[in-house]
Amino acid sequence: MIDLNADLGEGFGRWTLTEDETLLGVVTSANVACGFHAGDPSTMRRVCESAARRGVRIGAQVSYRDLAGFGRRAMDVPRSELADEISYQLGALDLFARAAGAEVGYLKPHGALYNRVVHDEQQAGAVVDALLAFRRAAGRGLPVLGLPGSALLAAAEAAGLPVVAEAFADRAYTPGGTLLPRTEPGAVLHDQDQVVARAVRMAGDGEVVAVDGSVIPVRARSLCLHGDTPGAAALAVRVREALLAAGVGVGAFV
Amino acid sequence: MIDLNADLGEGFGRWTLTEDETLLGVVTSANVACGFHAGDPSTMRRVCESAARRGVRIGAQVSYRDLAGFGRRAMDVPRSELADEISYQLGALDLFARAAGAEVGYLKPHGALYNRVVHDEQQAGAVVDALLAFRRAAGRGLPVLGLPGSALLAAAEAAGLPVVAEAFADRAYTPGGTLLPRTEPGAVLHDQDQVVARAVRMAGDGEVVAVDGSVIPVRARSLCLHGDTPGAAALAVRVREALLAAGVGVGAFV
Amino acid sequence: MIDLNADLGEGFGRWTLTEDETLLGVVTSANVACGFHAGDPSTMRRVCESAARRGVRIGAQVSYRDLAGFGRRAMDVPRSELADEISYQLGALDLFARAAGAEVGYLKPHGALYNRVVHDEQQAGAVVDALLAFRRAAGRGLPVLGLPGSALLAAAEAAGLPVVAEAFADRAYTPGGTLLPRTEPGAVLHDQDQVVARAVRMAGDGEVVAVDGSVIPVRARSLCLHGDTPGAAALAVRVREALLAAGVGVGAFV
Amino acid sequence: MIDLNADLGEGFGRWTLTEDETLLGVVTSANVACGFHAGDPSTMRRVCESAARRGVRIGAQVSYRDLAGFGRRAMDVPRSELADEISYQLGALDLFARAAGAEVGYLKPHGALYNRVVHDEQQAGAVVDALLAFRRAAGRGLPVLGLPGSALLAAAEAAGLPVVAEAFADRAYTPGGTLLPRTEPGAVLHDQDQVVARAVRMAGDGEVVAVDGSVIPVRARSLCLHGDTPGAAALAVRVREALLAAGVGVGAFV
Repeated sequence: MIDLNADLGEGFGRWTLTEDETLLGVVTSANVACGFHAGDPSTMRRVCESAARRGVRIGAQVSYRDLAGFGRRAMDVPRSELADEISYQLGALDLFARAAGAEVGYLKPHGALYNRVVHDEQQAGAVVDALLAFRRAAGRGLPVLGLPGSALLAAAEAAGLPVVAEAFADRAYTPGGTLLPRTEPGAVLHDQDQVVARAVRMAGDGEVVAVDGSVIPVRARSLCLHGDTPGAAALAVRVREALLAAGVGVGAFV
Repeated sequence: MIDLNADLGEGFGRWTLTEDETLLGVVTSANVACGFHAGDPSTMRRVCESAARRGVRIGAQVSYRDLAGFGRRAMDVPRSELADEISYQLGALDLFARAAGAEVGYLKPHGALYNRVVHDEQQAGAVVDALLAFRRAAGRGLPVLGLPGSALLAAAEAAGLPVVAEAFADRAYTPGGTLLPRTEPGAVLHDQDQVVARAVRMAGDGEVVAVDGSVIPVRARSLCLHGDTPGAAALAVRVREALLAAGVGVGAFV
Repeated sequence: MIDLNADLGEGFGRWTLTEDETLLGVVTSANVACGFHAGDPSTMRRVCESAARRGVRIGAQVSYRDLAGFGRRAMDVPRSELADEISYQLGALDLFARAAGAEVGYLKPHGALYNRVVHDEQQAGAVVDALLAFRRAAGRGLPVLGLPGSALLAAAEAAGLPVVAEAFADRAYTPGGTLLPRTEPGAVLHDQDQVVARAVRMAGDGEVVAVDGSVIPVRARSLCLHGDTPGAAALAVRVREALLAAGVGVGAFV
Repeated sequence: MIDLNADLGEGFGRWTLTEDETLLGVVTSANVACGFHAGDPSTMRRVCESAARRGVRIGAQVSYRDLAGFGRRAMDVPRSELADEISYQLGALDLFARAAGAEVGYLKPHGALYNRVVHDEQQAGAVVDALLAFRRAAGRGLPVLGLPGSALLAAAEAAGLPVVAEAFADRAYTPGGTLLPRTEPGAVLHDQDQVVARAVRMAGDGEVVAVDGSVIPVRARSLCLHGDTPGAAALAVRVREALLAAGVGVGAFV
């Protein structure tokens, strides 16, 4: 059983980016932009309402405060300030989710923040601080979705919070099991057949072929599908169908 | 028994405006800025924590999205868009309030939105729509604090939501019981003794002297104290002490 | 000889909207978004560089400060504040235009501001104040592009500034020569053949058929082509070709 | 002859921070905030008008786009994007300066950007790219004010742009002539007499006592006075008076 997650609701006002309705028909977990890198309030509400109707899990895709840079510019934000900025986004989404009859089911950092909390313990700690604020507020621990081996997942586990590891069918892996940096050639796979095949192997057999040809284990309860490039939604549909055809169950993590 | 409310948390990042700690020692209801006209996330958290410790009721002071204009520039925002922008602010504050062990106890529109919803039924309806979203989310109706006779209070009542009327000890009233517009001379009273005396008479006797000298009834469960001008916090302290000295109880509305 | 203008550069960061390069091949005047409703600095620079290479006139498409609403929400901004917000946008664009070897050739208000200054003399005055600041700064009067009969054009003329009237081939006109409000059925024409034919008649014969069937004069030195809807760029290409085929010269106003 | 510079115009809308009028009576160079970390358009205009009347040189105090963090949070902005964001600010201020009958006389990075371009060659290059855009636009090279030995000043010199080194009378220096990082104890001097004495010695004798007691040379044509802390303006007045009393001329760099 594998979870499929994708970024959604990444428009802002007049601008749209992600094919939200198509993706909501594919994924089991929707990473909803919360207004700091993308995601105006009306889009947040609509995505929450549609996700609730479809039974898709709603996740808070939190970001640095950076609309102009789409949250892709790393920022040196002090820990408590960053925690509060994340709590703010989390709370806003939570109201839309609950008003739609659902709830926020997990948190996933976006863009530069996602990359930063792989290594940066202060910022990873800030994300955890926000999750602890949420736990005090809502009386339940919110799972965090992230990269296996990241400082974020370690810090969340240490705080007693549930963590969910994810893998990327369209990214090259090193023999050590880490993602090949985007700055390296071949870091992102563009061949759709190859991406589909890797998704099935990751989810079905728990393994992937690394850049040196070796087969390495991948332990992930969720696969991340990209939603903000042309053809992304169509590829997501293909991945889902291939998984089901291969006998892999598709469903949200508990 | 009278409630005292004031605007708080109206700084943003490096900038501060309201003497939050002093005012939190005076008021029974704190109108906390929610980030759209003022109020960064860290300030929101700190004010909520302090209010929770002191037992001061936390209110969502919601606004148009207008940091540059401090929410004082009326905007023609379509109803559903405005409702969602208000829900967003409400949700963000709600998380900070709950994480501090309290909850959001009411909503009060800020600045130009406050003035607009006195007459504008579409925008008043947008505020009510946000309150209804909150009720779906939280399972409880949130009181709205506003001007007696306003379209907002009428719409909220019609939707079955609790309403709380407020009065202003430092504003001149017409014989008809409405506020003299700020554009008129004498609309705002600056004599502190006079303001204190009016507050006591409003809260103790339920009446005020209008601009033509006539005595008119004032039915308000809350008095609004201004917090964003020099000396405002000191005046708020005087008003509270005068009320208590006159035997008027000071306490949050239920 | 007719000028063709269209809105350009209306992306922001990760988001794109207008087909800038296609439109720059069509229009003689480019209304460049200046960052307040759309238009990040890099887009502004790129559009200015491309316009300069092509000899397309660069115009400052100024707006209320409202990214979330794309400048489509009217705002009650005090005159001097609005003038300064417009000057700010104008100055920013001016540097990109001059760095590209060109200059800002005119100003056109965007969205809700465009509509507001048809009637609102205070806000029309604010636009003129910004144009006067530009004249003091640059030593030359900047033409303003707008609706014939508007308060803006009247105020600009009264201030000794050049004005350019524009017409809309895809909008219905009343017998009195004003635009049928968008709230009325049939206000926007969607039939492309009809739009092309009207453009040719407006530019070639200076007339248009009003909603009651009467033929009314249209005195406009510029035609506005819309650029932010699907198919807009293709329609713009057709209009230009039909004008040339009909023997109407296409060129920027002096 | 020494130049005195200070940050000014660092309010935003309803919020004020720097005592602009007092500081404009003291400094010879005004670092005017340009709207990205602080500085709304109306404040920019007013400061430019006052500076022009007083003959104070106007500088563009450019920043990362970060109102919430007051530009104090370092950001990983790609070079061309950062250059464009700086050009945008520069152009906006330039219009206000020219409309006031003056011109922008120099550029100084603010906050985290100032610190970043001490070492970061990409971001230093971005600042220089913006200065080159300005040179293409205005036909003159704009001096850059910064830290001696910084990557920024090196890059600007290499591009043929004028550079101006500044010193800080209220900061501790290492024996090597660099600033003691703010994270070290004693990095910022709070004793006003000491700050005044250091300013006179820096400007008059070109030297300062380092943290180890050694006397080191300071080659700076400008002294930076801080303007955004309580008492800052009063201290600035004292520094200016002490310089004049010691026979040091106070005047803008050419």
